[in-house]
Amino acid sequence: MFVGLWVRNMAVKTVLIVYAHQSAGSFNAAIKDATVDVLKNQGCNVLVSDLYEMNFKATATKDDITGAVKNSEHFCYGEETMLAWQEGRLASDIVEEHKKLKEADIVIFQFPMYWFSVPAIMKGWMDRVLTLGFAYTSEKRYSAGIFREKKAMLSFTTGSHETMFSSNGINGDLNVTLWPVQNGVLNYCGFQVLAPQVFWAPTHLSSEARDSLLKDWRTRLQGLLSEVPLSFPPIDSFDEVKGFQLKPEVHEKQADSPFGLTVGHHLEKPLPPHSQMKAGV
Amino acid sequence: MFVGLWVRNMAVKTVLIVYAHQSAGSFNAAIKDATVDVLKNQGCNVLVSDLYEMNFKATATKDDITGAVKNSEHFCYGEETMLAWQEGRLASDIVEEHKKLKEADIVIFQFPMYWFSVPAIMKGWMDRVLTLGFAYTSEKRYSAGIFREKKAMLSFTTGSHETMFSSNGINGDLNVTLWPVQNGVLNYCGFQVLAPQVFWAPTHLSSEARDSLLKDWRTRLQGLLSEVPLSFPPIDSFDEVKGFQLKPEVHEKQADSPFGLTVGHHLEKPLPPHSQMKAGV
Repeated sequence: MFVGLWVRNMAVKTVLIVYAHQSAGSFNAAIKDATVDVLKNQGCNVLVSDLYEMNFKATATKDDITGAVKNSEHFCYGEETMLAWQEGRLASDIVEEHKKLKEADIVIFQFPMYWFSVPAIMKGWMDRVLTLGFAYTSEKRYSAGIFREKKAMLSFTTGSHETMFSSNGINGDLNVTLWPVQNGVLNYCGFQVLAPQVFWAPTHLSSEARDSLLKDWRTRLQGLLSEVPLSFPPIDSFDEVKGFQLKPEVHEKQADSPFGLTVGHHLEKPLPPHSQMKAGV
Repeated sequence: MFVGLWVRNMAVKTVLIVYAHQSAGSFNAAIKDATVDVLKNQGCNVLVSDLYEMNFKATATKDDITGAVKNSEHFCYGEETMLAWQEGRLASDIVEEHKKLKEADIVIFQFPMYWFSVPAIMKGWMDRVLTLGFAYTSEKRYSAGIFREKKAMLSFTTGSHETMFSSNGINGDLNVTLWPVQNGVLNYCGFQVLAPQVFWAPTHLSSEARDSLLKDWRTRLQGLLSEVPLSFPPIDSFDEVKGFQLKPEVHEKQADSPFGLTVGHHLEKPLPPHSQMKAGV
């Protein structure tokens, strides 16, 4: 049993980096390269999906299905791709990403923030690869999600300074901006969501200051795989019979807190500080 | 002068519908068709960018620029496309959308919600068409934005019921989910943002119930162009010299309110209810 435990702990971890920058000379490329380097040195198996290099198809179309669609008059992407997945008729590029995702213990999304979100090519990866049936069903989602044994995180550069992405800053609180992706994509599929790694406005920094950010990231990477994830309410906090509303007992339990549960489940109270940015808060 | 006023009020309005559904048999198509119908009957000039039909390129690449790029070693999409825009070297599909956008008095984004956001093909429209220089600069944004005389709105279908997208519901408050797009894209470019039109879980409805939703939308469309937009703090609420932080006097003015200013500028207070969903609240 001791040996079994040892083997499990020492098992090679697989990391999938979903990477979206057009240029190998970019700071995003340098971050990605540092990630590959540190994790390989830890003995991890590192896979990289370099979306621009792969000329990754971003749009969800009929071409994602080989053979006939079920209802060509009213094509529903979700249903049709679920069927194609069940029948082994999904486009080969989606199947390739499915393989990587199945292998992965952790997925790191590396990108420059575009319009308060991921670039379209990365949104396309999410739209196409997180196939209904493969990545979620109406029963298997959130803490009951298909990927609940896996971890995922966002690592990105911004164009704006940190202070501008605060509650007092012109762009508003970054915790709010991150909610749809961290809750609506990652947590939705069951991933344990690690705190994001934010590289603030690197184009405004000297090359020494950027090196220092990379050094901090390398340090974080040493312990990344054992980090505690961000906190989201488990799915049994909600009553399925009552339209997935928060159970009264969970609501009551939160009554003494000055804060809501999460950014989205704020319960008409102030948002819990940093809840999409730091674990254990 | 009376005649001038009359001419201005009666001037033909141009509406651009940016539409993203794969199927002409979809409910999104029916909504789009109703929008075209009602607005044309009002005498509007209606333009439709049917993104899937156009096979719209979603990804932001070097191909968006004709001729040499400035820095091929470190390709920065924002800077390179701004330069190409200034020099008339942008890809023709972007130039076409720029023309429509310049003409438009209002832009309606019509889509099925994918992963708490717009489908990748529509994100690609935003990433590529809202070109630095053409759609915003660091000086011209938010209420000083380039499109401040224009209106924009989201009109979309969901997979989940309304109660699930509440603060008590499993998906959290839709006001939070809408913030990055409504504030970070539309308000950022200066658009006056009209309240979203949300078609809740139409696939769960009877065809009669869907017809009833279309009827409600047709009614709203009658007065759409004169609707009061959602409320966002004007850009002079923030002190540019102090890193675009909220000015103390604006903060103080909000002191008596039980709520923050917006979802993102929550000032550590409860979010203003429905602020991304309803105007005048």
